[in-house]
Amino acid sequence: MTPNQSARTPNATRRSERSRRAIYDAALALVAEVGYPKTTIEGIASRAGVGKQTIYRWWSSKADVLLEAFLDLSEQAAEAAARNQPADRTADRATAEPQYGIPDTGDLAADLKYVLRATVDELHDPVFETPSRALAAEGVVNEELGRRIVAKLLEPQLQLYVDRLRAAQDAGDVRADIDPCIGLELFVSPLAQRWLQYTGPITYDYTDTLVDYALNGLAPR
Amino acid sequence: MTPNQSARTPNATRRSERSRRAIYDAALALVAEVGYPKTTIEGIASRAGVGKQTIYRWWSSKADVLLEAFLDLSEQAAEAAARNQPADRTADRATAEPQYGIPDTGDLAADLKYVLRATVDELHDPVFETPSRALAAEGVVNEELGRRIVAKLLEPQLQLYVDRLRAAQDAGDVRADIDPCIGLELFVSPLAQRWLQYTGPITYDYTDTLVDYALNGLAPR
Repeated sequence: MTPNQSARTPNATRRSERSRRAIYDAALALVAEVGYPKTTIEGIASRAGVGKQTIYRWWSSKADVLLEAFLDLSEQAAEAAARNQPADRTADRATAEPQYGIPDTGDLAADLKYVLRATVDELHDPVFETPSRALAAEGVVNEELGRRIVAKLLEPQLQLYVDRLRAAQDAGDVRADIDPCIGLELFVSPLAQRWLQYTGPITYDYTDTLVDYALNGLAPR
Repeated sequence: MTPNQSARTPNATRRSERSRRAIYDAALALVAEVGYPKTTIEGIASRAGVGKQTIYRWWSSKADVLLEAFLDLSEQAAEAAARNQPADRTADRATAEPQYGIPDTGDLAADLKYVLRATVDELHDPVFETPSRALAAEGVVNEELGRRIVAKLLEPQLQLYVDRLRAAQDAGDVRADIDPCIGLELFVSPLAQRWLQYTGPITYDYTDTLVDYALNGLAPR
């Protein structure tokens, strides 16, 4: 559920928007500080300076609030990334790809490297990192939450890679018999595991290498 | 630290071994039931029927106890897997590979698929799964523990893949310019992410596909 703004005066809408933003900020800050299990609707309300009922009017559980707060955070990051793109990339985007999607310049390796470098930046951003770790950790032991994180947060991002790999199949740059949903895991999952489990450093060089290995394979050509 | 058995009588050694086993079992059961933060040395001692001092004589923290309990669990799983191998595989192992290593039959794809299928079985085994998830979840938000999990539990397992990929480089089955530490992530990390984040089903078909994609690449050959 999201705030229904249709029947409101401009001032009421502005107040709602302010409350919604305060609730998201409070939810992300709290989960980062005390972890998912100790984050409560009461705590979020108190920190956001709103009544509990304001939260319950819009969301039915703390999981709902948190998932929407993360969705909002990701959208903000994507908008910021779009604003920070070089002009030639922005021009490409306007014609050749969906909003906030993966660029399609015709050079698959370059496009994947470009997007994965942006993900590296996001993973190193403390605004994103601390609350994301708290949510991800709970998802590991709480299957119901884990599956909602996938459906709400991960799948929509992974779908962009599926779309880009399908376009690459049409262009003959990816084999037709590849399942794009598995193919994308060759470069997305290593980055995810390094981030989740501290198995290695996360750098541009690393993600560039993943793309080259995934496209060309480990075996001699 | 592990029990120093050198100066003991056979009966004392047997008692120590019994206590050690009871402590491991208690630690794994507790972390599965209440999670890492609420698992305490006191709780482990009480459940194992030993005094707190018995635990502190051998280990300095609950992280130490848990990491050794997991190490022991993995070793037991590896021993069981070795016992359950088909006879021809066992014969290969005796001559061609280190104990509990990855087989080297000369067919890299078959050897990797074989080991990853065993990992699929382990990931589906509740004895392994519930405590592992509790430890992994804490590692996501507790960097110091996360790094110890990598050093004590993950790295030794990943090293086996490094060794196998290096042998494959010598045999000309993997390109010489591949970094085996990154190469292995193309098939290991997708499985890890599906397990950690419920991003997809974990089956033999899936891990077989990962090996084929990783070795051959997504681009046409």
